[in-house]
Amino acid sequence: MSDYLPGLAGVPATKSNISDIDGEKGVLYYRGYPIEQLAEHSSFEETTMLLLDGELPTASALKEFSRQLRKNRWVKFHIKELMKTLPATGHPMDMLQTAAASLSMFYPSKDCLTAGGSGCEDINYVHNMTVKIISSIGTVVAMWEHLRNGYEPPGPRPDLSHAENFLYMFTREEPDPLLAHIMDVCLILHAEHTINASTFSTLVTSSTLASPYSVIAAAIGTLSGPLHGGANQRVLEMLQEIGSPDHAEAYVEKRLANKQVVWGMGHREYKTKDPRATILQGLVAKLMEARGGKVNPLMEIAMAVEKAAEERLGHKGVYANVDFYSGILYHEMGIPADQFTAVFAMARAAGWLSHWREQLGDNRIFRPTQVYTGRPPRDYIPLEKR
Amino acid sequence: MSDYLPGLAGVPATKSNISDIDGEKGVLYYRGYPIEQLAEHSSFEETTMLLLDGELPTASALKEFSRQLRKNRWVKFHIKELMKTLPATGHPMDMLQTAAASLSMFYPSKDCLTAGGSGCEDINYVHNMTVKIISSIGTVVAMWEHLRNGYEPPGPRPDLSHAENFLYMFTREEPDPLLAHIMDVCLILHAEHTINASTFSTLVTSSTLASPYSVIAAAIGTLSGPLHGGANQRVLEMLQEIGSPDHAEAYVEKRLANKQVVWGMGHREYKTKDPRATILQGLVAKLMEARGGKVNPLMEIAMAVEKAAEERLGHKGVYANVDFYSGILYHEMGIPADQFTAVFAMARAAGWLSHWREQLGDNRIFRPTQVYTGRPPRDYIPLEKR
Repeated sequence: MSDYLPGLAGVPATKSNISDIDGEKGVLYYRGYPIEQLAEHSSFEETTMLLLDGELPTASALKEFSRQLRKNRWVKFHIKELMKTLPATGHPMDMLQTAAASLSMFYPSKDCLTAGGSGCEDINYVHNMTVKIISSIGTVVAMWEHLRNGYEPPGPRPDLSHAENFLYMFTREEPDPLLAHIMDVCLILHAEHTINASTFSTLVTSSTLASPYSVIAAAIGTLSGPLHGGANQRVLEMLQEIGSPDHAEAYVEKRLANKQVVWGMGHREYKTKDPRATILQGLVAKLMEARGGKVNPLMEIAMAVEKAAEERLGHKGVYANVDFYSGILYHEMGIPADQFTAVFAMARAAGWLSHWREQLGDNRIFRPTQVYTGRPPRDYIPLEKR
Repeated sequence: MSDYLPGLAGVPATKSNISDIDGEKGVLYYRGYPIEQLAEHSSFEETTMLLLDGELPTASALKEFSRQLRKNRWVKFHIKELMKTLPATGHPMDMLQTAAASLSMFYPSKDCLTAGGSGCEDINYVHNMTVKIISSIGTVVAMWEHLRNGYEPPGPRPDLSHAENFLYMFTREEPDPLLAHIMDVCLILHAEHTINASTFSTLVTSSTLASPYSVIAAAIGTLSGPLHGGANQRVLEMLQEIGSPDHAEAYVEKRLANKQVVWGMGHREYKTKDPRATILQGLVAKLMEARGGKVNPLMEIAMAVEKAAEERLGHKGVYANVDFYSGILYHEMGIPADQFTAVFAMARAAGWLSHWREQLGDNRIFRPTQVYTGRPPRDYIPLEKR
């Protein structure tokens, strides 16, 4: 081929059994199960096993996997010491990439080259790595919130689910059951989304047989960009900038007139409303009802922005997306905006590790070609003649 | 498209002006200049500017760039403290990914989304980021050699070139001029090599507008895999395993009979001998001559392996590659085998950052598609019915 498609848009880069999107109908499936059914009936722990292994686990397998996740919530104290050397002003995603990369040194992983492809298909190994990484990320993200403010973080609680424990460790308070349920659903919804940029990054790094910690650190770096995971933080910053529901319509008008994006609106993969957004919208309503309408003032601004944006963009198939509602909900849980992408990473690690496993099962190193558009051969010019 | 090419082999993923390979003729060009001419006349500092900017620098621009590189050899002492929290048993590439990711928190980078595409094309910004990253990597790799052995590392020396300073910091000895020259050539030869897996990883991470530190950390993770940069370490381990020149022929015979690779032989891109290997072979000869034939015993084993492998594989176009000779030369400089890939990363950072710059100049987020081969839609099964 002599030409290329920028961003490989529309170019198939892999085959996969993990998830599927029907952008016309606005549906998302994990291993064939509609996301709505998983959001309603499953848990993040169960969904992680489904994504990894391809099937819903039996009760005993789920119990064992949950036990392992709980047991791995403690990270070595050296990792806390490492985090203390990092500047409090740094971005949580940069902290998370640093901490994830360091896990490679603290915990062993298998040499998949020596073990052969089948060695890395070993289900116990895949589970062990997944458990270590998902539990560690939850702990590290929550710990950082305390460390960057100058406090010792609380230890993990083995009596709580993944979502509950994260909220407990993050806020040092007994988690509110409704908020913990919402967090669990948010983690399910963010766990996987076919071959997006960070998942593609996962495949590329996995394909050299790098350790799963190095793979996840690479994916975290890719997710951190404002064109990818960094977007959910910007939704909240936008709402704070607008300041009042009365200003929402004028703000949206101005952004559209200037051909600027309205953060949290639209998704390249969906021609209809993002199905995850619809689920979160229902949870926002549930939360408002439970609170007798007394919610954070930003929620009202959000509602006004959503209305103004959908009136103007809905006919083009542009609606509020998953970032729009998750930001509002995380804010309600007491999570600062700059931590939103780290929470996203904590969920997406389940998808990334499922793709890591799939890549190793049928690996070929990624080495595409380029269309060379540079200078033809020429001779070196000595410094004194330039 | 309904089918895909594993590893995107033969699929163009980008256009690029940076480097070009003619695999039939066995030639490699950086910005149009043959690698042989750069190895003979250029320096790593100058080659880095050539790769970044597209043209050989003027004497004054090179002087200023070198000054900046020298000035940035000091890293904040917090980074040393961070490195002290890492286990001495960890792999240097994992240390390097951790330290590179942490730079995002210690040093500012531009928000390219806010600044717009052209903002990131700002030559001063590109130079500042490149200088900070290349100088820091050199310092961190050398520091780690002392820290992991329990010693305080020496500080950098602003009177030395990049290659000389690295050898000084690594060994704490005045660098031997011939070895420093060889290191400089090794850095030039490893600086760039079109769209290999780690460079592709650079493009994917860059495309979300992640910080250049996050981008380089992702690329280091990808390079760390044994199918990519990890290979040069294995050459030396193989020579140590063989133990004597007399065993070389039998070893090669056995590996080939078992359809196993002989490390450091062959390269997917070249049908002839890797041009970088030819250059390094010349330097090995020069070094042997300078030492009156008295070199490390591993060199004799290497020569015997090379002879045995080329007799058996040369007719298939399989010859010793750049990894084969660089490993021997690094060993001669007193660099342990597990640090080889980190030295590779130090050089390749020049290429990665050139591709980072090029990607930002004409960016589109990487989001290829997948061929979905998984389950068709199905309904959730409650836990008690599984």
